[in-house]
Parts: sequence; structure tokens; C-alpha cells
Amino acid sequence: MLTRIDHVGIVVHDLDASLKTYCDDLGFRLLQRVSIPEQMVEAAFLDAGNGTIELIAPTDESSGTARFLQNRGEGTHHICFEVDDIAAALETLRGQGLRLIDETPRQGVHGLVAFVHPKATHGTMIELLQKHE
Amino acid sequence: MLTRIDHVGIVVHDLDASLKTYCDDLGFRLLQRVSIPEQMVEAAFLDAGNGTIELIAPTDESSGTARFLQNRGEGTHHICFEVDDIAAALETLRGQGLRLIDETPRQGVHGLVAFVHPKATHGTMIELLQKHE
Repeated sequence: MLTRIDHVGIVVHDLDASLKTYCDDLGFRLLQRVSIPEQMVEAAFLDAGNGTIELIAPTDESSGTARFLQNRGEGTHHICFEVDDIAAALETLRGQGLRLIDETPRQGVHGLVAFVHPKATHGTMIELLQKHE
Repeated sequence: MLTRIDHVGIVVHDLDASLKTYCDDLGFRLLQRVSIPEQMVEAAFLDAGNGTIELIAPTDESSGTARFLQNRGEGTHHICFEVDDIAAALETLRGQGLRLIDETPRQGVHGLVAFVHPKATHGTMIELLQKHE
């Protein structure tokens, strides 16, 4: 059902500072930098060979990402897995009794996305992604 | 330098309970279950298509993994990237001034491994892996 790791999301305070670390020091290549106003974040996707690393920084103190930073500090925020049919995947997970954050898919940067609640998956937030055609 | 995501490590309290969630509910396939006595953990590797998910549970309360659970609770612990030459990669990272946990590679389950300190990488623990031939 979850066919591959699409990306791992890392929440950071400062996108430019983290890009310096991940690109200049660790050698990743920046693929795309995007603003996501409805989530009050800015994100950068880095080429990790078989998938990507998404660095995410809040642009507003009232965002969920800013709250994550206040509660947990910088670090890994979610693992995103690609699915072929996100509606069917959500239906299956709901049938298993898993608690979902998104009951229905919503539009993400690279396709339809939905998050599973970390309380359902031993503390790791899982994102499902059905990529754009 | 970091050529691909090999696996994402998730620390859990109870390996059997987490395997039930990740295999029965989320649909992952168990590839390998191993005991790592020197780290006082038991681990399970799950097929995630282009990489694996490693579930890790402490077998002793004095282990680093048990301390992680006490401090942070269950959740994502590290991202492991494959490298072609781990000695050269560590030398490069040291040259960039990055703080390392392992100054020299040590034997892991699937090859030579070394960890970069999460303080050097915005809160995410990064593992380097040079796979066995």
C-alpha cells in the first residue's frame, strides 16, 4: 500500500541556515524551494538519490510547525510514503482503526496528501502522497 | 556523497506491538528481525520499497535507546544514508567542522556505520552506512 519513501520532513528554525548545512556541508543538491502560505511555512526539497529531504521552516509563530519547534525543537517531523490511490489507502487505514489527521486528501506541493496521527504509529507522523500525474 | 536513503529508524517501546501496527495495519513486510546486544536493542527492518524502516526497541533500561524514549518518547530516531566510502565521507564531514558521534566507522548490522551528531544537523541524527560487499 505504501509503495516507497518519497521524502523525510525535517522542521528547522531557519531555512537558509539549514540549507547551508545540508547542501554546503552534507552535499545535498537543492531541487525546489517553495512557499506554502496556507500552512505558514517555507520548504526546500533536496535530492537524496532515491527520494528527497524536505526542510521546513515556519513563517508565522501561530503555525503548527512553530508549535512543533516550541515543543520538540528542530528535528525529524514526518516520513512521507507514496501511494497509488490515496482515497483507497485512507479507507484501508480507517478500517484498521488508525487515527487520521486528514480524513480526506488535500492538495499538497506534489500531489494529494493526508497525514496519519503520530499517536496511531508509535510517535512517527506518516504522510501519504498520491503524486500528480 | 550521501547517495540514497537506506532507512529511517524509529524508536519504540515494544517491538511486537509496533510490528503489529506497521505490518498488520500499515501493510509493511518484515524483512529481518535482529538482536544487537552491544547496543542493548532489538530491531526489525521492514520493506519500504526503495529503502527500509527500522523499528528499534531497547532491551535494557541503561541503553541509549531507553534514554531516548525517556526524554523524547516514541518516534523517529535517525535517517540512514548510504555512502560509497564511509572513511572518506567522515573525513569530508570532519573537514566541514561537523560534530560526529563516531569518529571512526564501526560494524553495524548491514555494513560499516557512523553517526553524525544531531546538534550538527538541525536536530536530525544522521547515520552513514557503507554496505557490506
